[in-house]
Amino acid sequence: MPSSPIRKLVPYAEEAKKRGVHVIHLNIGQPDIKTPKAALDAVKNASIEVLAYSRTEGSEAYRGKIASYYAKHQVHVTAKDIIVTTGGSEALAFTMGSILDEGDEVIIPEPFYANYNGFAAANGVKVIPILSSITNNFALPDIADFEQKISARTKAILICNPGNPTGYLYNEQEIKQLVDLVKKYDLFLVADEVYREFAYDGKQHHSILAQAGMDNHAIIVDSVSKRYSMCGARIGCIVSKNPLVIETAMKFAQARLSPPTLAQIAGEAALDTPQHYFDDVIAEYVSRRDLLLAELSKIDNIKIARPSGAFYCVVELPVANSDDFAQWLLEEFQINGDTVMVAPAAGFYATEGQGLNQIRIAYVLEKEQLKKAVHILDKGLKQYLNR
Amino acid sequence: MPSSPIRKLVPYAEEAKKRGVHVIHLNIGQPDIKTPKAALDAVKNASIEVLAYSRTEGSEAYRGKIASYYAKHQVHVTAKDIIVTTGGSEALAFTMGSILDEGDEVIIPEPFYANYNGFAAANGVKVIPILSSITNNFALPDIADFEQKISARTKAILICNPGNPTGYLYNEQEIKQLVDLVKKYDLFLVADEVYREFAYDGKQHHSILAQAGMDNHAIIVDSVSKRYSMCGARIGCIVSKNPLVIETAMKFAQARLSPPTLAQIAGEAALDTPQHYFDDVIAEYVSRRDLLLAELSKIDNIKIARPSGAFYCVVELPVANSDDFAQWLLEEFQINGDTVMVAPAAGFYATEGQGLNQIRIAYVLEKEQLKKAVHILDKGLKQYLNR
Repeated sequence: MPSSPIRKLVPYAEEAKKRGVHVIHLNIGQPDIKTPKAALDAVKNASIEVLAYSRTEGSEAYRGKIASYYAKHQVHVTAKDIIVTTGGSEALAFTMGSILDEGDEVIIPEPFYANYNGFAAANGVKVIPILSSITNNFALPDIADFEQKISARTKAILICNPGNPTGYLYNEQEIKQLVDLVKKYDLFLVADEVYREFAYDGKQHHSILAQAGMDNHAIIVDSVSKRYSMCGARIGCIVSKNPLVIETAMKFAQARLSPPTLAQIAGEAALDTPQHYFDDVIAEYVSRRDLLLAELSKIDNIKIARPSGAFYCVVELPVANSDDFAQWLLEEFQINGDTVMVAPAAGFYATEGQGLNQIRIAYVLEKEQLKKAVHILDKGLKQYLNR
Repeated sequence: MPSSPIRKLVPYAEEAKKRGVHVIHLNIGQPDIKTPKAALDAVKNASIEVLAYSRTEGSEAYRGKIASYYAKHQVHVTAKDIIVTTGGSEALAFTMGSILDEGDEVIIPEPFYANYNGFAAANGVKVIPILSSITNNFALPDIADFEQKISARTKAILICNPGNPTGYLYNEQEIKQLVDLVKKYDLFLVADEVYREFAYDGKQHHSILAQAGMDNHAIIVDSVSKRYSMCGARIGCIVSKNPLVIETAMKFAQARLSPPTLAQIAGEAALDTPQHYFDDVIAEYVSRRDLLLAELSKIDNIKIARPSGAFYCVVELPVANSDDFAQWLLEEFQINGDTVMVAPAAGFYATEGQGLNQIRIAYVLEKEQLKKAVHILDKGLKQYLNR
């Protein structure tokens, strides 16, 4: 099992805190946005005498409401196409377990969410990365690059849209290219769409299940975590119109009995969250992103991938090893008792040696903190380069 | 992935319900006992604005309280020996993933909790069953039987104590025999102790971690589900003094980010449940068990395993195939609109052909229902045999 790219920095952050240094976390995707009150109130107001197992696949009512949610996003499914899971993590684990045997290959554009490696390793599955580039904001690599990597063991292509860590939102043409590709080679297309709502600059999110002819190919991995700022609920779902995928995933689901009951109550109530909540949240993220980009642009000799979705931004620094730089920031640097923790990007790449000079910044902090953090990063970088 | 032994009967139960027949469920381990109010109130009273991720291993405070709970049960551990999991299921999945490689073997006395098969299959691990017998209430098989099955691929012995589906509580001598065995062959001893408190007739539960010299060998799989009648919480834990086991399990834990936050609040508060709650619950289960045994003893030609723990009872019936009988009860039989659903026991055996004439009864119903259910079972059995 591989470790998370951030994990090895944690002891240094803890040491810094022990020395009284305040660490501003640019490294974690835990939003500070308030969870919709209706979701939390639903749990408070639930009349529970026996906190019993739910159905293995989640309650019929909840899955029905999830289906209605998807209908608003041009994805037409019913309760039977949905399995409620313990977070998007479990949705991904069940998906990998269901469609990939030991030794099979899954193609993933890199950089990608590091935990994909963990689930692949747990299933004995080989991750075949395809390099995307900061120079075009991590757009979809050429389809020829995918075709070159497809082997007899290739079973699936996995994307995260919009992307963690890239913040890139695939346009409809890119999605259609992937759709054509998986049809041509009879592969699964798995899309982690947990950031679906976080699409900026008037751009639309295009779900893989909104595309024609994808019933047998498409599997959506989803979660309430980021959508409603309820990462701690641990509620997600698998969505597929392929009955064999659902049937197989159900066997994994049965082994773990049921997803958490209290959190499902919150998840179901969260589906009634009014549009203005998202409007407000998205406006907030866009203004944070704009501030982040404006502040970053003042730093010399860096490359910035402009994010059009999610709440991450990959930055290329004039350093040889961002892991070392990130550790140095925690161990050696502070301004008036503050320092920053960033996520070195190498851990988001499967190819050895890639992303060594990149970092991921999560803009889940209030603007004042964010501005201060970039200032510290800038000064820290100068001092690091001149040390 | 194998299916649960009950799962294939579910459609017949649903059909019966559609015909207006009331199905009394003797087949599920979902207690009807009320969850401690303090646990549910803790969730209602929690001041949460952002439902955030918890620590991957569970909060320091909660794990500290869990350690204090174990100290009362002669198990001396600290927070660092504990990983909070999403139910006992995840504790078992992480344990198997951490100590067993593909092709490795785990020895389990049969009959055993059917989901062990699911987790073994998911990890490519081979289950080596050792037959225990209804004639001695499913006591520990001879140690010679274990020794005969130990191979170069054997990594662990797994027990459930007290047992699901057997209701058998291992005495101290049996635990010591297993302890000596795993030390002799340098194996892990994994004990599912989720029914720890449910020990009857003045008998004591003996934890594997209360035994001397087991720090490197013992792994406890635990859960709040049955203890506090909160199956829907999905909170459990792994406990081991072996740092490598904890370190490896943490990698699996990191991949799924964190256990559910709301349910951890309930789980932590549940630890303050006063002893009289357990006294009352145990008195209730003992009186149900006694009633069940008294009623079952009126049925001709059956064998009953007397349970001394948990809330299950295995019964051997004068039928060739209890699966067929269970289906017949749902499809063909009723008394005044009532029938019963039992769990055929063959699914709790790994050895083909074993347990075909046995069923598991869960006595998690009120006594009046339980009495009625046994009456239906008795009459049904007579009619089935004479049909």
